[in-house]
Amino acid sequence: MWVEPYPEFSPERPLFICILANTETAKIPNISAAGKSPELTDYTPAADAELVETGKAISITEPPMCPSGAPTPAVLTRASKLLTDIPCLFINAGLNVRPKIHHIDINGNPGGDIRKGHAVPDVVDIYKRSAALGRTIAKLSDLVIIGESVPGGTTTAMGVMRALGYDGKVSSSFPNNPVEIKNKVINEGMKKSGVTFGSLKDDPLRAVFCLGDPMMAAASGLVDGLKTRTILAGGTQMVSVLSIIKNLGLERDVSIATTRYVADDPSANFREMTEILGVHAFASDPGFGNSRIKGLKMYENGDVKEGVGAGGAMFLAAMMGYSQKEFREKAEEVYDSLFSIS
Amino acid sequence: MWVEPYPEFSPERPLFICILANTETAKIPNISAAGKSPELTDYTPAADAELVETGKAISITEPPMCPSGAPTPAVLTRASKLLTDIPCLFINAGLNVRPKIHHIDINGNPGGDIRKGHAVPDVVDIYKRSAALGRTIAKLSDLVIIGESVPGGTTTAMGVMRALGYDGKVSSSFPNNPVEIKNKVINEGMKKSGVTFGSLKDDPLRAVFCLGDPMMAAASGLVDGLKTRTILAGGTQMVSVLSIIKNLGLERDVSIATTRYVADDPSANFREMTEILGVHAFASDPGFGNSRIKGLKMYENGDVKEGVGAGGAMFLAAMMGYSQKEFREKAEEVYDSLFSIS
Repeated sequence: MWVEPYPEFSPERPLFICILANTETAKIPNISAAGKSPELTDYTPAADAELVETGKAISITEPPMCPSGAPTPAVLTRASKLLTDIPCLFINAGLNVRPKIHHIDINGNPGGDIRKGHAVPDVVDIYKRSAALGRTIAKLSDLVIIGESVPGGTTTAMGVMRALGYDGKVSSSFPNNPVEIKNKVINEGMKKSGVTFGSLKDDPLRAVFCLGDPMMAAASGLVDGLKTRTILAGGTQMVSVLSIIKNLGLERDVSIATTRYVADDPSANFREMTEILGVHAFASDPGFGNSRIKGLKMYENGDVKEGVGAGGAMFLAAMMGYSQKEFREKAEEVYDSLFSIS
Repeated sequence: MWVEPYPEFSPERPLFICILANTETAKIPNISAAGKSPELTDYTPAADAELVETGKAISITEPPMCPSGAPTPAVLTRASKLLTDIPCLFINAGLNVRPKIHHIDINGNPGGDIRKGHAVPDVVDIYKRSAALGRTIAKLSDLVIIGESVPGGTTTAMGVMRALGYDGKVSSSFPNNPVEIKNKVINEGMKKSGVTFGSLKDDPLRAVFCLGDPMMAAASGLVDGLKTRTILAGGTQMVSVLSIIKNLGLERDVSIATTRYVADDPSANFREMTEILGVHAFASDPGFGNSRIKGLKMYENGDVKEGVGAGGAMFLAAMMGYSQKEFREKAEEVYDSLFSIS
């Protein structure tokens, strides 16, 4: 099985949602590989959404890449969309650059720099509006998969988990996880906001306010409003959303689906955290070791790993009966049409 | 029957969509009554959406009113939402003021002043993005009701219908329809853009470009993409959308639902136009002659008449088995909670 455990769901009207946000945290040098340079991270979520929806980035002239040259995981999400024909919606939870396609706006502001200690001043507004959106969507869909595109998002994820008292180790879109820089940034933010390990365990939205990002507020609010079956599609960033949901005391039918690159990342502790949080976890393997395309093979080296709901997108493809080979070939096709090389 | 003919539909997942737009045309003095002053019309669509979604306007301190004091028809749409619990989504097709609730953004720009002859420069982009949105929504809903909030929208409606060769006479939110001003503005716009009666009958998007508003581009694109059963909820503005759809050659299952205030307005020709265009038309009567509330009774004098999909909202309530009395009482309740008077 290329998705473990095999997803035994049979929804009638599944919906894929991807939450987009920018933060100033992403612009701290060497924090994020989601963009060729720190400044370009502002364009990454918009370009990811455009790529999934239309097959090409519109807001920038080339598709979002890691500095290494590995392509954005939006390629995988696009492949799943083409295979499964599932409806996709994108949420602007706080962007500097809006995607040039239809998307849902919840009037959130981009996140700040967590070193200043007030990363998401409008966390409550974002949460409430997203919950209202969730209540609307619950009437239309019976299985919602929620992914994200938030450069710098693993740093904010780790910060929030610490504030809630979890030793969440996070993954990275760099092959060598810049753990030291992340720790330094988080420690600075915790000091500035007067937060210590676990001190906000009873006030998770305050943890997002101080150290998080707008996606977290939107994702947890959405789950609150949805009340329908939900799959969080992501790695350690979605683990931090799970920790927020748990500490808010929300009882919802939520699982998590990620890639094996995150699930097996020794610098993170994905499996341990999902056990602590008591949620079902799915891990998908696109089998890129067999790919004829160098950019996709780079995923096997630990470049990129996850994002734009790629793990959940593979979960979806598997749930709807597509094989690993069919998925990989579709991803290669998407890659080819993006770069016109093979 | 308070809705004629009785709507014999039994959808499983109906969805109400309201398309919002601003235009410079609305700011021409005495054109629009959708706002206490021409400048305030910029706030009307946002406030309407906020009122339907949350029960109160957020972007302005009081609910949108006509200069006469009659309340926005969003009151009726809110009443239907409360009765039927139907999901509602709002689309920003081109706004100067965004609603402070979740909504769908299709990256449209506000419309210009039609006297300048290029009212919607991005008509094709809006149409295409809206069609893509329609294809997504078609997978989630089996009956979509589409309303609008566009101050000044009857003038742009009349302009587009003339360019397409229809003698569409439009209604007004003023009790005395300012037909002469509308004619003068439209004639100026037609002259400026070199358009004569019927000269754009084969190029309806060009008619919107020259003389229309962003809502028309969004609504017709949405219908194109949806392919599912659709009810256009509105008066003469939605008749102009029907004329665009017809002249584009789109074959879709589209009907129109409005209020009896529009259907019976002698200054307009709603029934004649829907016959010419060959669509089913529904007209609803909230029975406000029996209302204890003066502001609602004013509808009987020809104030307001329609908007924010009010006619379609009543259609929905009737379709789901609610009586005229139940609807009127719910509208009174909404009015009371807005104005805290009775």
